[in-house]
Amino acid sequence: MLVTAFEPFGGERVNPSAAALHALRGRSVAGHPLVTSVLPVSFAASLPKLRRLVLRHRPCLVLCLGQAGGRANLSIERIAVNVQDARIPDNTAAQPIDEPVEPGGPAAYFSTLPIKAMHAALRDHGLPGEVSNTAGTFVCNHVFYGLMHLLATEPRLAHTRGGFMHLPWLPGQGEPSLPLAALTEGIAIALLAAATHATDPKLGAGHTH
Amino acid sequence: MLVTAFEPFGGERVNPSAAALHALRGRSVAGHPLVTSVLPVSFAASLPKLRRLVLRHRPCLVLCLGQAGGRANLSIERIAVNVQDARIPDNTAAQPIDEPVEPGGPAAYFSTLPIKAMHAALRDHGLPGEVSNTAGTFVCNHVFYGLMHLLATEPRLAHTRGGFMHLPWLPGQGEPSLPLAALTEGIAIALLAAATHATDPKLGAGHTH
Amino acid sequence: MLVTAFEPFGGERVNPSAAALHALRGRSVAGHPLVTSVLPVSFAASLPKLRRLVLRHRPCLVLCLGQAGGRANLSIERIAVNVQDARIPDNTAAQPIDEPVEPGGPAAYFSTLPIKAMHAALRDHGLPGEVSNTAGTFVCNHVFYGLMHLLATEPRLAHTRGGFMHLPWLPGQGEPSLPLAALTEGIAIALLAAATHATDPKLGAGHTH
Amino acid sequence: MLVTAFEPFGGERVNPSAAALHALRGRSVAGHPLVTSVLPVSFAASLPKLRRLVLRHRPCLVLCLGQAGGRANLSIERIAVNVQDARIPDNTAAQPIDEPVEPGGPAAYFSTLPIKAMHAALRDHGLPGEVSNTAGTFVCNHVFYGLMHLLATEPRLAHTRGGFMHLPWLPGQGEPSLPLAALTEGIAIALLAAATHATDPKLGAGHTH
Repeated sequence: MLVTAFEPFGGERVNPSAAALHALRGRSVAGHPLVTSVLPVSFAASLPKLRRLVLRHRPCLVLCLGQAGGRANLSIERIAVNVQDARIPDNTAAQPIDEPVEPGGPAAYFSTLPIKAMHAALRDHGLPGEVSNTAGTFVCNHVFYGLMHLLATEPRLAHTRGGFMHLPWLPGQGEPSLPLAALTEGIAIALLAAATHATDPKLGAGHTH
Repeated sequence: MLVTAFEPFGGERVNPSAAALHALRGRSVAGHPLVTSVLPVSFAASLPKLRRLVLRHRPCLVLCLGQAGGRANLSIERIAVNVQDARIPDNTAAQPIDEPVEPGGPAAYFSTLPIKAMHAALRDHGLPGEVSNTAGTFVCNHVFYGLMHLLATEPRLAHTRGGFMHLPWLPGQGEPSLPLAALTEGIAIALLAAATHATDPKLGAGHTH
Repeated sequence: MLVTAFEPFGGERVNPSAAALHALRGRSVAGHPLVTSVLPVSFAASLPKLRRLVLRHRPCLVLCLGQAGGRANLSIERIAVNVQDARIPDNTAAQPIDEPVEPGGPAAYFSTLPIKAMHAALRDHGLPGEVSNTAGTFVCNHVFYGLMHLLATEPRLAHTRGGFMHLPWLPGQGEPSLPLAALTEGIAIALLAAATHATDPKLGAGHTH
Repeated sequence: MLVTAFEPFGGERVNPSAAALHALRGRSVAGHPLVTSVLPVSFAASLPKLRRLVLRHRPCLVLCLGQAGGRANLSIERIAVNVQDARIPDNTAAQPIDEPVEPGGPAAYFSTLPIKAMHAALRDHGLPGEVSNTAGTFVCNHVFYGLMHLLATEPRLAHTRGGFMHLPWLPGQGEPSLPLAALTEGIAIALLAAATHATDPKLGAGHTH
C-alpha cells in the first residue's frame, strides 16, 4: 500500500497530511506494510515522483492525502478533473490557469477506491467523514488525476486501485480543524476499509450541489 | 437564449432560481429574447423537458439555473459529472444512488460557456460570483450533464453552447443569502457576458481543494 | 439622526460601513436629515470623536456601523460588553488585552434601539438581517459600549437612543458578502424602523448559542 | 468540582455535553473528584437543579457544558447576559422572548474562570479551542447567567468560581464536529487549567466582531 502526503504550501508551516503520515510510518494495514512518501507541492515535480513510486512498488492500493483548509471532515474524493487552475502559486512559483493535466485525456476519472465503504467506516468509528465531489484544481487534483490516468493507461498497474483523501486543518492553522490523533486514526480506518472492500456498498453520500 | 430554473424541492416553498427567472421573463439579452422554463426536480422528468425545449428552440446558448443552499456566491459551474447520488429524494420520491446519468457516457463534461468571462463580469458589477468545480450529484448536476451530453452528441445543436449556474438562498431560506434583486441582476450580467464572449480570458478562479 | 461608520482596518482597503455611509450622505430618514461621520479604527481616538458628535448634535438616535467580515447578514447588535480584547492591532498599533472600556462601568449595556423592529423591517423588505448577541471585543464593541455608557450617564442625552449594526463584507473582500446596494438599502430600512418604533415587538430572534 | 451537561434538545437524540460528561464520570482533576450532573433543557427546571447542586456541594469550581451546533471549537464562554430569547421551544415547550433571566439583575456577568489559561491549555495540547463572547440567549446562557448571579449574591459561595463551555456537535449530528475523544480530553484539560490558575494570563483571544 502506497500512501502519500504533501509538504506545506501557501505560506503555511505544516501540512496535516504530512503530519499524519509521519505518525503512520512503519505501520501495516490489513497485513500490507505502508510505503509512505511526501510529495512536493509542484505541478512539475509531484507527478513524476508519484509515478516512480507507483511503478517501483506496484502496490495493490494508492491513497494520496492532501490538505483542504476550510473543510470540516476527512474528505474522500470521488472524482479527479482534467484541469489546472491555480488560485495561488505552487511552491515553485508555477501558477497554470485552465491548462489540462493531461492534454487529450478524458475530462475526469472516478476514484477506483470503495469511497462509500471508507465513508461508512469513518462514521462507524465516530469520526467525521464525507464523500467530496471536487478535489479542487490545484496540485492535489493534479496528482489525483495523474494517478488515475496512470492506473488507467499502464497495463502493469491493472490491479492497482487509487484514490485521494483531503484532510481538514490541524488546530492552530484555521477553522474548522481536527486534532492530529483523529486524522491519523481516520486514515488508518479508511485504508483498512479500502483494503477489505472490493466493491462499494450502495450508500447515499451525495450532495444536492 | 434558453434559461431554465427549478421548482422548489426538499420541503422548501421557494426556489431562488424560479423566483429570479420569473423576474427576468420577457427580457432580452444582447438582442436575444429569453426563452424561460421551470423544470421539475425529478430525475425522470427534468431532462426530457429540457431536451424538448432545446431541440424546439435551438438556442445559441442554454443556461440552467439551480439552488445551492449554503453557498455565498452566484456560482458558475465548470463541470458536470456522470453520476447520480441523491442525498434526499427528488420531488417524485426517486433517490438513485451511484447510477450514471448516461450509461456509457464520459465521466464528465466541461461547460462550454465562457465561465471566466461570466465570473469577471459579476465581479466588475460588484456582485459576489465564483467558479465552482462541482454541481453536486442531485438533479442539478443530472440536468447539467444531460444538457452537455445532448449538445455534444446531437449534430443539430453543434452551435449551441451550454452551462449551469447555482444561486444562493433567498433571505428567509437560510444563510448565507442574497436579495432577489442581486440574483436577477447577476443572471442578466452573466448571460450578457456569455453571449458576448466566444472564448474565455485567462483568469484564475480555481480552488486549492 | 447620527450615523457613523469606520475607516478600513486590518490591512483592507475598504470598509463596507464607510462605503455604504458615503452612499447615504445627504439623505433624510423619517424627516430627520442624516448626520454622517467616519470614525477612526482606534481605541484612543474613536470614542472622543463620537462623544463630540453626539454632544454637538444631540440626535434622537445614533446608529454606529461597522464591518463584520465573515457574517452573512446585516447584523443588529443587542449588547455591548465592557472589555477590550484586540486580536489584531488597531490602526494606531494599539492592542489592548482584557482591559475595560470604562473602568468601573457595568459589565454590559443593551442597545436602546428597537432591534426586533429593525430585524422585522429588513425581513419584510427581502434583505438578510439578524439580531447578534456579540459585537466582538475590538473597536466596534468599544465604540458601542462607550456610546451606551455616554447615553446612560449624560443627562443632556436622556432622549437619545443608540445602537450598533455590523455589515458583511463587500464582494471582493471575502465570503460571504453583500452588494453595496443591499447594504445601503438595509441601513435606510433599519433607520426608518428605529425612528418609527418607540418600543420593540415581541419577536423571537435569539440564538441557541 | 461540579461539572454539568445538558440532555438533548431541538429534536436531537444526543447532546455532546452529556456524552462527554458520561465518559468523565468517576474521574478526578487536580485531586478534586468530579461531581457530574445532566440538567434538563428547561428554562423553569434547569436553574433550580443547578442551585441545589451548587449549594449542596459548595465546589471550588463549577463548569457548565452545553452544545453549540455549528461551532468548530471547544468554546470557552466569557460572558452571560440577562436575557432569554428562545428561537426554539425548550424541552417543556416554553419559549420566552426578551425576558430577563433575573429581573433587576445586571445586564451581564463575566465568567470567573481563567478563560485565557483554559484556552492556552487546549492549544498546547493540540485541541481546537476558542474564547467566545456569546453563549446565546437560550437555556445555556440562562443557566450560565443564573450560576454567575448565584455565585455573586450568595455569601456561602464566595470562594466558588464558575463558567461555561460550549461543545461542537459529535460526528453524525452536523458539521463541523469533533470526535468524542477530543471533547472528553478537552474538558479534562480545561478543568485542570481552571483548577490550577488563580488568575488569567494576558493572552489575546478576542474577536473583531
